[in-house]
Amino acid sequence: MTIYDWHTGPYPARVRIALGELGMQSQVRFVSVDLWKGEHKTPVFLVKNYSGTLPVLELDDGTLIAECTAITQYLDALNDKPILTGVTPREQGVIHMMSKRAEIELLDAVSVYFHHATPGLGPDVEIYQNAEWGLRQRDKAVRGMHYFDSVLRQVPFIAGDTFSMADITVVGGLIFAGLVKLSVPQECEALRAWYERMLERPSVQNRIVMSEPVTISA
Amino acid sequence: MTIYDWHTGPYPARVRIALGELGMQSQVRFVSVDLWKGEHKTPVFLVKNYSGTLPVLELDDGTLIAECTAITQYLDALNDKPILTGVTPREQGVIHMMSKRAEIELLDAVSVYFHHATPGLGPDVEIYQNAEWGLRQRDKAVRGMHYFDSVLRQVPFIAGDTFSMADITVVGGLIFAGLVKLSVPQECEALRAWYERMLERPSVQNRIVMSEPVTISA
Repeated sequence: MTIYDWHTGPYPARVRIALGELGMQSQVRFVSVDLWKGEHKTPVFLVKNYSGTLPVLELDDGTLIAECTAITQYLDALNDKPILTGVTPREQGVIHMMSKRAEIELLDAVSVYFHHATPGLGPDVEIYQNAEWGLRQRDKAVRGMHYFDSVLRQVPFIAGDTFSMADITVVGGLIFAGLVKLSVPQECEALRAWYERMLERPSVQNRIVMSEPVTISA
Repeated sequence: MTIYDWHTGPYPARVRIALGELGMQSQVRFVSVDLWKGEHKTPVFLVKNYSGTLPVLELDDGTLIAECTAITQYLDALNDKPILTGVTPREQGVIHMMSKRAEIELLDAVSVYFHHATPGLGPDVEIYQNAEWGLRQRDKAVRGMHYFDSVLRQVPFIAGDTFSMADITVVGGLIFAGLVKLSVPQECEALRAWYERMLERPSVQNRIVMSEPVTISA
């Protein structure tokens, strides 16, 4: 398997953490797509992923799987018993809901803020910006932090009693928030404590150094 | 099971079509949440779904599952052999990817256009609009139609050889496009032909009349 990503990207982090949780890092070759040079928006890369986003998983038969949720679903389904996406229908439904909610209310909102209301990846990549929309999304992300804090005051993990893909998505959101200097409010004590625990997980700690990025050859 | 939705909503259509494909309509009670009155943005509904969107599935044990993909995943997993979300890891990954892509590049883009660059649900509900962003998303949706046309020139269904959740998501996108008078370009012949076939499916034909909406009681 090959993963096209960028080693410090918040979305790539989601799949790298999933691989770490599944103990599958050694089965993957990482190919570096330089976000800061806009390599993810080039015609050669758009053939791999129409949406022009990272990461993308390429299977040995040439099948391309983009979107973190889809990649995580694929990787987790390779095991006899999934550990990230739920076993029972109820678990699957709740985990998918909370992961999507973490995208909408936090991770994607921070991303839009970064790309639209900050210099983002620079003028050569950010060819259209809508600052007003970006600032709205920043405020949405902060509200999202308060929401996930309220969740974590009730249960130990984002989707309930066990670690799941939904935790990984919120971690991705807070990684991105950290990169754009968007702090988790002090009063979000449950979210802050949960994030400290997440940062101690080997899958999170080892996400960047677990592979030597190589130059894109596609 | 109870589903909170609105009978003509494009997102609710996704779950209603899934129920139809699974032959499960009779197992569900539908509770009407009036989009045009903004009932999905009221405090009582936001307790059911923080994001304030339809539909929401409520299980008999009180579990709430929002987000069409999550609801579809739950419903499909109730069967011994899933028919909408894939069986093999590869099928699951590709279907989730294409369904998410259909949201990003078509359905969600049309929705943002509707809510931001048209009167949307009216001034009482659309309390903030960003018309420029809405128009950008309209153009993105039209590009998305061309993309899915290119897919359907290669394979009979959105995720390959068989009907899946990904087809339902594109159907939702074209239902929404129709509501906002955004036509599928004439040259998108494969997409138009596929949509004609989709509209003939009983699950699509019967999505609106299969239940008598009742007044919200939550």
